[in-house]
Amino acid sequence: MEKLIEKAKVLIEALPYIKKFYGKTVVVKYGGKAMESSALKESIVIDIIFMKYVGMNPIIVHGGGPEISSFMEKLGNKPKFVNGFRVTDKNTMNIVEMVLVGKINKEIVNLINKNGGKAVGISGKDGNLIFVEKKKSKIDLGFVGEVKKINTEILNTLDGKGFIPVIAPLGTDKNNDTYNINADSAASEIAIALKAEKLVFLTDVRGILPSKNKFAIPISTLTVKDAVKLKKKNIIDGGMLPKVDACIKALQYGIKKTHIIDGRIMHALLLEIFTDKGIGTEIVK
Amino acid sequence: MEKLIEKAKVLIEALPYIKKFYGKTVVVKYGGKAMESSALKESIVIDIIFMKYVGMNPIIVHGGGPEISSFMEKLGNKPKFVNGFRVTDKNTMNIVEMVLVGKINKEIVNLINKNGGKAVGISGKDGNLIFVEKKKSKIDLGFVGEVKKINTEILNTLDGKGFIPVIAPLGTDKNNDTYNINADSAASEIAIALKAEKLVFLTDVRGILPSKNKFAIPISTLTVKDAVKLKKKNIIDGGMLPKVDACIKALQYGIKKTHIIDGRIMHALLLEIFTDKGIGTEIVK
Amino acid sequence: MEKLIEKAKVLIEALPYIKKFYGKTVVVKYGGKAMESSALKESIVIDIIFMKYVGMNPIIVHGGGPEISSFMEKLGNKPKFVNGFRVTDKNTMNIVEMVLVGKINKEIVNLINKNGGKAVGISGKDGNLIFVEKKKSKIDLGFVGEVKKINTEILNTLDGKGFIPVIAPLGTDKNNDTYNINADSAASEIAIALKAEKLVFLTDVRGILPSKNKFAIPISTLTVKDAVKLKKKNIIDGGMLPKVDACIKALQYGIKKTHIIDGRIMHALLLEIFTDKGIGTEIVK
Amino acid sequence: MEKLIEKAKVLIEALPYIKKFYGKTVVVKYGGKAMESSALKESIVIDIIFMKYVGMNPIIVHGGGPEISSFMEKLGNKPKFVNGFRVTDKNTMNIVEMVLVGKINKEIVNLINKNGGKAVGISGKDGNLIFVEKKKSKIDLGFVGEVKKINTEILNTLDGKGFIPVIAPLGTDKNNDTYNINADSAASEIAIALKAEKLVFLTDVRGILPSKNKFAIPISTLTVKDAVKLKKKNIIDGGMLPKVDACIKALQYGIKKTHIIDGRIMHALLLEIFTDKGIGTEIVK
Amino acid sequence: MEKLIEKAKVLIEALPYIKKFYGKTVVVKYGGKAMESSALKESIVIDIIFMKYVGMNPIIVHGGGPEISSFMEKLGNKPKFVNGFRVTDKNTMNIVEMVLVGKINKEIVNLINKNGGKAVGISGKDGNLIFVEKKKSKIDLGFVGEVKKINTEILNTLDGKGFIPVIAPLGTDKNNDTYNINADSAASEIAIALKAEKLVFLTDVRGILPSKNKFAIPISTLTVKDAVKLKKKNIIDGGMLPKVDACIKALQYGIKKTHIIDGRIMHALLLEIFTDKGIGTEIVK
Amino acid sequence: MEKLIEKAKVLIEALPYIKKFYGKTVVVKYGGKAMESSALKESIVIDIIFMKYVGMNPIIVHGGGPEISSFMEKLGNKPKFVNGFRVTDKNTMNIVEMVLVGKINKEIVNLINKNGGKAVGISGKDGNLIFVEKKKSKIDLGFVGEVKKINTEILNTLDGKGFIPVIAPLGTDKNNDTYNINADSAASEIAIALKAEKLVFLTDVRGILPSKNKFAIPISTLTVKDAVKLKKKNIIDGGMLPKVDACIKALQYGIKKTHIIDGRIMHALLLEIFTDKGIGTEIVK
Repeated sequence: MEKLIEKAKVLIEALPYIKKFYGKTVVVKYGGKAMESSALKESIVIDIIFMKYVGMNPIIVHGGGPEISSFMEKLGNKPKFVNGFRVTDKNTMNIVEMVLVGKINKEIVNLINKNGGKAVGISGKDGNLIFVEKKKSKIDLGFVGEVKKINTEILNTLDGKGFIPVIAPLGTDKNNDTYNINADSAASEIAIALKAEKLVFLTDVRGILPSKNKFAIPISTLTVKDAVKLKKKNIIDGGMLPKVDACIKALQYGIKKTHIIDGRIMHALLLEIFTDKGIGTEIVK
Repeated sequence: MEKLIEKAKVLIEALPYIKKFYGKTVVVKYGGKAMESSALKESIVIDIIFMKYVGMNPIIVHGGGPEISSFMEKLGNKPKFVNGFRVTDKNTMNIVEMVLVGKINKEIVNLINKNGGKAVGISGKDGNLIFVEKKKSKIDLGFVGEVKKINTEILNTLDGKGFIPVIAPLGTDKNNDTYNINADSAASEIAIALKAEKLVFLTDVRGILPSKNKFAIPISTLTVKDAVKLKKKNIIDGGMLPKVDACIKALQYGIKKTHIIDGRIMHALLLEIFTDKGIGTEIVK
Repeated sequence: MEKLIEKAKVLIEALPYIKKFYGKTVVVKYGGKAMESSALKESIVIDIIFMKYVGMNPIIVHGGGPEISSFMEKLGNKPKFVNGFRVTDKNTMNIVEMVLVGKINKEIVNLINKNGGKAVGISGKDGNLIFVEKKKSKIDLGFVGEVKKINTEILNTLDGKGFIPVIAPLGTDKNNDTYNINADSAASEIAIALKAEKLVFLTDVRGILPSKNKFAIPISTLTVKDAVKLKKKNIIDGGMLPKVDACIKALQYGIKKTHIIDGRIMHALLLEIFTDKGIGTEIVK
Repeated sequence: MEKLIEKAKVLIEALPYIKKFYGKTVVVKYGGKAMESSALKESIVIDIIFMKYVGMNPIIVHGGGPEISSFMEKLGNKPKFVNGFRVTDKNTMNIVEMVLVGKINKEIVNLINKNGGKAVGISGKDGNLIFVEKKKSKIDLGFVGEVKKINTEILNTLDGKGFIPVIAPLGTDKNNDTYNINADSAASEIAIALKAEKLVFLTDVRGILPSKNKFAIPISTLTVKDAVKLKKKNIIDGGMLPKVDACIKALQYGIKKTHIIDGRIMHALLLEIFTDKGIGTEIVK
Repeated sequence: MEKLIEKAKVLIEALPYIKKFYGKTVVVKYGGKAMESSALKESIVIDIIFMKYVGMNPIIVHGGGPEISSFMEKLGNKPKFVNGFRVTDKNTMNIVEMVLVGKINKEIVNLINKNGGKAVGISGKDGNLIFVEKKKSKIDLGFVGEVKKINTEILNTLDGKGFIPVIAPLGTDKNNDTYNINADSAASEIAIALKAEKLVFLTDVRGILPSKNKFAIPISTLTVKDAVKLKKKNIIDGGMLPKVDACIKALQYGIKKTHIIDGRIMHALLLEIFTDKGIGTEIVK
Repeated sequence: MEKLIEKAKVLIEALPYIKKFYGKTVVVKYGGKAMESSALKESIVIDIIFMKYVGMNPIIVHGGGPEISSFMEKLGNKPKFVNGFRVTDKNTMNIVEMVLVGKINKEIVNLINKNGGKAVGISGKDGNLIFVEKKKSKIDLGFVGEVKKINTEILNTLDGKGFIPVIAPLGTDKNNDTYNINADSAASEIAIALKAEKLVFLTDVRGILPSKNKFAIPISTLTVKDAVKLKKKNIIDGGMLPKVDACIKALQYGIKKTHIIDGRIMHALLLEIFTDKGIGTEIVK
């Protein structure tokens, strides 16, 4: 009985957070290692279903890098990258779309539905969600796009009826050609368009480190100003760069808090949202 | 961190129950010792606020026996009881109403609001909620009423706008005279009228015992048939009688589950609703 | 038949007033002698029901001074006043609440329902209606509050579903402690918050007199400016002071007309609203 | 003041009737002498506006006999009647329509709007309100129709937005040819289709008389059975016949009360609806 | 089959126009010769029904000049005109109203309903649609009004429920006297009040000509500036003047496009709206 | 001009069909050769957008057979069929899903959006649209499912907000495993669940032939009874069998008309719906 009462107390501890986020939108970018372990994946979708049931509006944007490359190789294509961007010719674009929309997106949808949520998976094409322009670059990147407009109509429609939207980061340009988009940036733009309360990146690192020493303790709260400094010193670099840039942009456009958290921790999302003990790094204005 | 993850798991364990009761009405009769300790009172209202936030519609019906009697004595009136019913002359009725409506009801409302809920306290008079007839009895009981009709309009109005209704068990008859009603019976009738999912009695005993031995382990699940047997053997008697009768009536009119639980246990309501480990006694059809 | 036609003509004479006030809110402060005669009480609630049926939104705020004091004395407590304010210790506050909420409020609710309206009685605690701060005073007045914020949500909810709200003038502060509030001031603040069309005080005098001569003919229309003059000359004093101050404040915050009328006249409210012949004193900007 | 209070009492006397008819539909057939005196006309439209403001849904169906004939004569056409029905060739039909729709209907609309109501005048053509078949008859009556279907859509649309519908009794058949319809029968069919509470005929007689003696006192309440008897004895005859038949049909199809009242009495409608003293004859099942 | 495919292609060609005008209001002034041929009348109402079905909100304003005069003559009255305005005494006004409202309006309503639309015919009196003042003039014109205010409530009510409003151009002044209004001007004012997308005049000429030579090719697009010039040169004159003035006013108050088209061409409206090939003259800012 | 008027007449000819199908649901199964020519594909999506704009609710279900097989071969997998069903192991299922959801579905969505519609592409997993059981078969077919339940919630949500749903025929079973479903059968079940007005199969044949002679003229209307006869004679066989069975089932469950039409004809859908000249074969009860 003692133990049960302890459990009830834990529920009650969550109440102030439930109140605080009631009716609020949280955009979750989900990718990397957190998508590989099936236990972690399940932990994450359950967190999201929980958020939905206690009155939040979670929106998921997923990535898909490693699976795309491995599938390309199966088909005998060699992935090529320039400055971290996948060079995307027509054929590559087709493969990207098949893997993102026809595989990863549906796996997440399925996992949510299996655990009792109601997910609907869409891409940036559906309902004209994401409008892009071709990314300018010295070396032609092919069908790599930059988000120019988010049309939130389909998200509001799904959200208003209790569905959890799961979004594959693709978009179309003015010719209705399909483009590959950086998922971090897509998540940030969607958060801005929805005036989300929070933007959360589920990554496979412990957070942002203060130095190149990879055993350092992650920074718990980082201002935009300090983030810019760490970028200049190349301490923030690699795959962390687009995430930090996405956070900075979101903060500039009115999102209150952005988080880069460790998706390898079980229930990382719930911990971030329902406890005071932040995990990973929070970037604020 | 380990400990935090444990906490997240506890939240997640509640998810199947949150789903199950989403949008459902639960009528809670609240009285006795559970109303005396301020820690317990707070634990109960927090449980109720939690229920509201995760999508349930809790409705509270409260009693007030001991406080009424003590207040009567302060005023120099001597409480009189016949077969467990308070003999209620006009003057007594006034005092009952002042204490129930002007004191106990408002204390509960205040406690809920203090803890972040939105409560509205009403009596069975407001919005013509409870219509009664004078209780027939060999010895005249005065203004003691029997519920004849519940007009749920005010409850639906409050519920639909996010308020938690807190109800003092009084009613009016065809002459608009005010009557005292047994709170257990009022709770049962309200549950029936609202087609509630559950009817829960928060009491100050451990549950229904299988024998007169008061150290016996309470019965965890009791059928109506067995409840009737225990009544015949006088094992169910005293203050437990109206509660058991209220449960039986509710079950006959379609309520699925009724519970008599120990309000002295912290977070008894949450334990009952959000765990499989029932506490106290559940009476089923 | 002649007489019947006369009656029909009277109904028709009310039509321009019905049109004028259709959909408008009228806050009625009800107290004093008008609450003592049962014929007068019935006349007033019938007027209010009539107003509701012809499309107005009447809101009642009641006082309770004499009954509180007499009940305190029954309990052996001696009422104490400083500058017209009741010194309110914890015990007094409890008694005030019981009498206001558990007795006077419910009597009005009952009377309205008996006459065919649908009333719901609440206090300033319910739905967090009235938020107060402790009144500053040289001599500590105890739990005497000043209205700081009106949360109209519960009033709009009740009104929107055809209920007549009846309000006991209590409020809670930031610690959720209960405070006694001057009913005149509560009525004024509620009228302001609801952007009411009119604020009407039902009193037990004939109106505001132009001089100390108590047989003088009451002033029929008074400007704020002249009201201030009469205050300086102490011609407006005593129990009339808070009423006049409440009117002045309401006028400053946009209420168009305020009235101090003689509740001892049968159907005083209807006369005020449905005829051109004002009764008592109207205070205007 | 005494007199004012008397007036307030009259308003209050109307309250039980206001309650009783709140939200109910009353179909009023308006024709004959009551349409000739401008004082009477004004009295009637004011009654109707009053009904609308206190929550009823009055629907007006008007006739137009005398004006049609006089206008025909102006144009050099001689009105012809067979068994009380106007023989209606194409040219006559055009004149009927112009007078009913373009003159009488608009006069009523104008009178209502002038007195502060919001009327919209339509004919049975508008919104396909009245569908007819050609009336069978030994002698061809031309464009005289019998109501076969009422399409209440336009009435519900107008009513739902606070307009008072004023209806000219014309209809169209399956070829969309226009037909003249007996206004009494049109009123009855509309009342049935709207499940009206009451059907009232405003006539220019004192009611139904018990005998051929025209100074007899009118029958105050008549059953369908007795009405049939009076028809057999030819005591009910002439212009009264279609009214009584319309009442009988309405009663058979569920209308609770039908009335034949004297439109020459000022405020006859208000008297009928807001007093117990019925005027004219009420026909009941 | 070939031919069928051609037909399908025609439907598809209309799609961009359907999209463009989806949900938009188009006010159509309908009068003159286009009202005389029954084939043309049918072609026009079918165009309007088509517009309604594909999502537009067509509003019809009709005139009635020739029929009014011919009917007046039948009654032995001689029509009199001053500067193109009908001198309208009380008797004339009655005739105007009967013909416009009781004949022409209902013919259009009937034609629409016969062809499967849902029309409701009203005049400027109904629902207080058109408020006028007496037109100032050296020679007294009698009941000739100028539009001062359009109350769109009844139009929005009808439109919102799928009805097509058909409007006879009459109005009432502050004394509720009825006035004759120029139909062109009424159409323009209604378009302005409804913020219509387009205002279309269906006339019996080919458009606005560039010179007095009546075989000249009509101007296809005319600016307000050039229209003013043509007016000065008296090239725009006669019955075209009020139409052009109505267009200019509408353009000044925000209507995007106004059209004067040849109603003698079958399906002139559809051609104007659903093809790029404008017919007649379009006047733009 | 003549030609334009001809065009207007064609629009008008469509009006009776627009009326007839206003607000009705039409399920279109789209597959085979009609999906290969880009001109045909565009013609079909334009037809569907047209249907949406004139008030119908088109729902698209697509197949994908040939592309799946060709993609499998690219990956070095050999497609295997038993009785026309694709033997679907886990790996094949993944490929089916990627091609159907990530390629074909998104191509259709893109084509609709490019042409001005608002499409949203989903699979039977999204919003738990299609629930299946494993198909029973002597030879294990792997993940081949039979539709057991359609949950129309997501379709109604999309439809209600103006989106055109495009559905990939996959479903999940009670373990949330993904199954391949016959697209013809999926279309039929969705039509039944939505109580669709019509079910249309766009194929690459001219219709159902009366004999094995492939130059025979297709049957224009076929009853279920005759369809069963043709099946017995093996005249209906091969890929036509599941289509005919899907039609028969739909007819049994209340769909009024089913069509097997030649998708190789430009605007085949419009021709079928907006002309009397049916194309292909219509199967009726």
